Amino acid sequence: MYDFPKAVAIKEEGPREGFQIEKGQISTDDKVRLIDALSLTGLQQIVVCSFVNPKVVPQMADADEICRRITRQPGVKYTGVWLNEKGLDRAKGTGVLDITGAITLTASATFLQKNQNSSFEHNQAEASRIAANFAASQIPVRNVNVASAFGCNFDGDIPLERVLSLIDAGLRIARENDLQPERISLLDTMGWATPVAIRRTVGAIRERFPDKQIGLHLHDTRGMGIANAYAGLEMGVTSFDACVGGLGGCPFAGNPGAAGNVCTEDLVFMLNEMGIETGIDLDKLIECAQLAEEIVGHPLPGRVKLGRNLDRIRDRVRQAQAVAA
Amino acid sequence: MYDFPKAVAIKEEGPREGFQIEKGQISTDDKVRLIDALSLTGLQQIVVCSFVNPKVVPQMADADEICRRITRQPGVKYTGVWLNEKGLDRAKGTGVLDITGAITLTASATFLQKNQNSSFEHNQAEASRIAANFAASQIPVRNVNVASAFGCNFDGDIPLERVLSLIDAGLRIARENDLQPERISLLDTMGWATPVAIRRTVGAIRERFPDKQIGLHLHDTRGMGIANAYAGLEMGVTSFDACVGGLGGCPFAGNPGAAGNVCTEDLVFMLNEMGIETGIDLDKLIECAQLAEEIVGHPLPGRVKLGRNLDRIRDRVRQAQAVAA
Repeated sequence: MYDFPKAVAIKEEGPREGFQIEKGQISTDDKVRLIDALSLTGLQQIVVCSFVNPKVVPQMADADEICRRITRQPGVKYTGVWLNEKGLDRAKGTGVLDITGAITLTASATFLQKNQNSSFEHNQAEASRIAANFAASQIPVRNVNVASAFGCNFDGDIPLERVLSLIDAGLRIARENDLQPERISLLDTMGWATPVAIRRTVGAIRERFPDKQIGLHLHDTRGMGIANAYAGLEMGVTSFDACVGGLGGCPFAGNPGAAGNVCTEDLVFMLNEMGIETGIDLDKLIECAQLAEEIVGHPLPGRVKLGRNLDRIRDRVRQAQAVAA
Repeated sequence: MYDFPKAVAIKEEGPREGFQIEKGQISTDDKVRLIDALSLTGLQQIVVCSFVNPKVVPQMADADEICRRITRQPGVKYTGVWLNEKGLDRAKGTGVLDITGAITLTASATFLQKNQNSSFEHNQAEASRIAANFAASQIPVRNVNVASAFGCNFDGDIPLERVLSLIDAGLRIARENDLQPERISLLDTMGWATPVAIRRTVGAIRERFPDKQIGLHLHDTRGMGIANAYAGLEMGVTSFDACVGGLGGCPFAGNPGAAGNVCTEDLVFMLNEMGIETGIDLDKLIECAQLAEEIVGHPLPGRVKLGRNLDRIRDRVRQAQAVAA
């Protein structure tokens, strides 16, 4: 158990995670409209698109156009996702994205085997090769990521020792390439994390890697997202990925099992109430969540956009008390 | 910070909270069907209806009939809600309900004044009168409740000192009437609680009233329900009210601000993963949540009914591993 952090960094994943999973076609106009609105909330980083094969993910075929058309705001980092060198070249080619690398290792053997015809050894060899490319291209590497860090629908629960040894491997790969990642991020790719698992895993990482920041990427598949974030904050986690409105999850519209990252405005609401700085204007963020809901055309799971920001209710209480006095 | 409890008691509020808020008419058949299904999950207490004025709450006009028609299971306590002596007489008249009383005090001055033309003094005088009636009728009183314990849409944040002094008052009323409540319950009537507020308030109560159990009644208005429950567990809370499927909340169907109690199956999932006993069969409970959704005819906010019980995925993983071995 550690002190709560003073401040937390949030990476907004909604435009990518969210629009990627939608069944209907979302217009480039709408994507740009949401990204531009998010840019004015105080968010420091927005993942605007992914550079993937448009035949596989047609929803992201307009990735380059999105980057051309967004209105960049000072102080906001715009990033994209890529899975190979071709994607990286497209991302660089936009000329507007912040290009940072990461060393990502996957904790599920079966997932590696089934989805990438890979193994732990092969996964690490690939990560080494990619890290060498980042180093050669002077692309900064800020993160060591462990994917499926808590559990996997193929492999079940992931042993803590495996997570720790993958972090060791990631940091070794970084050292071998003169890279200095400052953060270890745990990706709960399939929504297996629970608050006690967060406490145990993050606690062990803090013990073993005390000089590293810790980040969490939490999917809300079983409704544990906010509780997991709280457990993470208790253990000193200082960065979170999140999706405005709960984008990416549309349990009420034909993708029952799917769930996005923890909802950004619900997370920011909790952080505000805890006195933890985010730099984000919650009211503007709630407006973005309402816009996201309007764009996708179905209810999104975030709650604060319905339940409202308590600070606005406090304002009304104060006004009523002033009138009465 | 205390140890997690070994076991937790859950009071299922769905049939009452949930069906009371629905706009459409729910048939008595359906209500009985859900209650009977819930009776077979291992839940120890189900609040089946409320005995209120049918002109004000027409959804509960069939309260007496519900009680007549449910199939009672051994080991399950069936309870009802009443707000006055007439309601209590109806509840007793059913002959099937477990009749227990509570001493309930409200922490919001403005709410008392606006909704009951009452004051803290008047509220306590009423509670004393009701407690005397319980004592005279030999109705056991197990709980001292503080309503609006965390905040109120009229009064704003509730000072901790007020909550503590109301508990003092409630326990004094109990003593004066030879009643022995074993538990203090905090009702987050308007969904103002956050995990840090839970930690602070429950911590102070544990310090001041170390011989009492503590219960929480949490509304999920701002998505904090499960995180609040987790924070409560860290502080040693041993009982929760909850609504199957997240009944009572229908943010996606015309009651945007409303939210029910924390979702029973999401809570039980977390408790299972923590190794905390509930006596409840999660798979049967998930079936009840699906039934509740079918009955109300719109999506309910609970997540585990979509994301699934991890134990069933673990079974599949084990089977696959056995086949591969």
